[in-house]
Amino acid sequence: MNDTDTAANAAARRFGFGTQIRKSPYFDATVRWGATGFSVYNHMYIPRDFGDPVQNFWNLVSTATLSDVAVERQVEITGPDATRFTQLLTPRNLSQCAVGQCKYVLITNAAGGILNDPVLLRLGENHFWLSLADSDVLLWAQGVAVNSGMDVEIREPDVSPLQLQGPNSGKIMQALFGEQIDRLRYYWLEEHELDGIPLIVSRTGWSSELGYEIYLRDGSRGDELWETIMAAGKPFGLQPGHTSSIRRIEAGMLSYHSDMDIHTNPFELGLERLVDLEMEADFVGKAALARIARAGVSRLQAGLELDGEPLAGPNTEYWPISHRGETVGRVTSAIYSPRLEANIALAMMQIEHTALATEVEVDTPDGRRAAKVVPKPFYDPRKALAKG
Amino acid sequence: MNDTDTAANAAARRFGFGTQIRKSPYFDATVRWGATGFSVYNHMYIPRDFGDPVQNFWNLVSTATLSDVAVERQVEITGPDATRFTQLLTPRNLSQCAVGQCKYVLITNAAGGILNDPVLLRLGENHFWLSLADSDVLLWAQGVAVNSGMDVEIREPDVSPLQLQGPNSGKIMQALFGEQIDRLRYYWLEEHELDGIPLIVSRTGWSSELGYEIYLRDGSRGDELWETIMAAGKPFGLQPGHTSSIRRIEAGMLSYHSDMDIHTNPFELGLERLVDLEMEADFVGKAALARIARAGVSRLQAGLELDGEPLAGPNTEYWPISHRGETVGRVTSAIYSPRLEANIALAMMQIEHTALATEVEVDTPDGRRAAKVVPKPFYDPRKALAKG
Repeated sequence: MNDTDTAANAAARRFGFGTQIRKSPYFDATVRWGATGFSVYNHMYIPRDFGDPVQNFWNLVSTATLSDVAVERQVEITGPDATRFTQLLTPRNLSQCAVGQCKYVLITNAAGGILNDPVLLRLGENHFWLSLADSDVLLWAQGVAVNSGMDVEIREPDVSPLQLQGPNSGKIMQALFGEQIDRLRYYWLEEHELDGIPLIVSRTGWSSELGYEIYLRDGSRGDELWETIMAAGKPFGLQPGHTSSIRRIEAGMLSYHSDMDIHTNPFELGLERLVDLEMEADFVGKAALARIARAGVSRLQAGLELDGEPLAGPNTEYWPISHRGETVGRVTSAIYSPRLEANIALAMMQIEHTALATEVEVDTPDGRRAAKVVPKPFYDPRKALAKG
Repeated sequence: MNDTDTAANAAARRFGFGTQIRKSPYFDATVRWGATGFSVYNHMYIPRDFGDPVQNFWNLVSTATLSDVAVERQVEITGPDATRFTQLLTPRNLSQCAVGQCKYVLITNAAGGILNDPVLLRLGENHFWLSLADSDVLLWAQGVAVNSGMDVEIREPDVSPLQLQGPNSGKIMQALFGEQIDRLRYYWLEEHELDGIPLIVSRTGWSSELGYEIYLRDGSRGDELWETIMAAGKPFGLQPGHTSSIRRIEAGMLSYHSDMDIHTNPFELGLERLVDLEMEADFVGKAALARIARAGVSRLQAGLELDGEPLAGPNTEYWPISHRGETVGRVTSAIYSPRLEANIALAMMQIEHTALATEVEVDTPDGRRAAKVVPKPFYDPRKALAKG
């Protein structure tokens, strides 16, 4: 037994469920590179702690980080009716989604509630992947298919993504794949091999930094892929890391379960652009979303800035928001941004209190804080550049 | 901030995802009563460590334990077609399932693969709960409903079960609900109130001991319910605890993801009794399971006893099984039973090697061990009694 085995087994024992929770193909590598804490996502371990989350943030925004996001399981849809069936799963109009293109989409149920917010990858005319947030959309998609009368195959392929994110990620990708990788546009994908390891590479991520996702298509070669990328990234300051709650909240990016769930509809998140009620094609939830669009919503997601000392960490509960003594919503994701030197938060609020500059109060475990509605995203690199 | 807050927040921070993972209504109570480690199951924390898992086992089999199993989320099916729709979800024949009765069922997909193994509760003529293992059957059921043409409502109600298990659980239930609770038969349920807290009580569990599940129907009263039960149980030696991997493996009970998954069919688990291919009613997977029944299976779950020193803990990986140098299967759940003084394991093996007394070898992280196929369950209280 070597050190990695010991650490890996200790981590697994801490979660106590034997084989009930799966390990990623990069599990041993992340432990070797300093992962000390894990969470669970889509029935798998995800590293969430490489020491200091603030350092992880600075690594991400100043050089680059490599993160194990194998928990983004893929739902693969193939077969003669794959295109029509995939459209059935999302309110976003996919008619302009070319082969080789990716789209951020919502998956909605018959009531218009959100079940997941994956990145859709179109690998072929009738070949799609949904790169999932934390819910079993494999079961949802197979369930919808049962009586659909469509000829599709729906399965979870052996695919495990990594995220290479940060300003130096482009140079690292050049070192790995050659200069032509620069031609890869935002939200497009390409098929690649690296020392014979089969990959899909996309210009996507969960950081709003320049970044790539590298989808390993052979789970037996995870360790090798991780080491190859870390070696190529060394001259460019690449650090092992994890997805950054600070950066994703700065960008106003959503975390499923935290910021939305089955009882949240797209309009409550201001995501009208992901719903096309005019298209001819049918999708699950169309009638319900049309009703909601007509009636309007009573809640809306807003950005908040909270007064007071820097928050010690992310909120571990929903924090009630009040206005003149009345509860008007709750904070879903809050964190201190060391770059903005501000406590920033995503909140679901009664719509009449979501106008910019509205003043409210937030009950945190450490006491009540004054807060104010501010624009999202909290950090916009283009504006920062214009200011700088 | 009190001690509970601190411990709860520390636990939540260790899992690192803010509000992405839910807390049970008993979370604070379990921390107060000594829970030191949590895992994640159905997007919620579950306490998995109250110190010594062996002590937890002896508490369970000698007096009684109270365990937070709020992670067993319920899928509620109601509406005029609820009975027909619920039958559609499972290969088990439900025609003899009376109102007030429970059934252990499998949920299968169109290929006959297992998606979950819940306990079904029939609360009314057209009112069912599926008390889930770890997968989003809410999404599956809603997906199957989409084009089913059946009039059903499918949702997750505000229901959070506790397990009260062990030889003294009957006396504790009498203290709580009066002597007439003794009339509650194995796998039946009753509606109850306790100090005005709305409950469903069933004689079910995951321990093969005398035991009950107590389903809280108002999440705001979890702390109160936990304390009420602990107080009533004090004279009977009730201990806070968690579901026991030792006891459930002794009983040959299955853990979803560990012992079976979407690629496992009921016949591979020897669970023919849960599949009725003769019934007139349709269910998802019927055609596929009929094909599998005709063709026979090539794998079968078997019980193994492993030689050598007591295992240090449950297996955290699948352990390969070999026979004369050839791989013939894998250990899915292994543990040392202090009562049987034996290393016992559930394994999925090529069927030709599953005859009782077949000798095989198992590769554990600490080296190769000899093993032998033995009967399941490993511990049968009736046989123990006959012996004693």
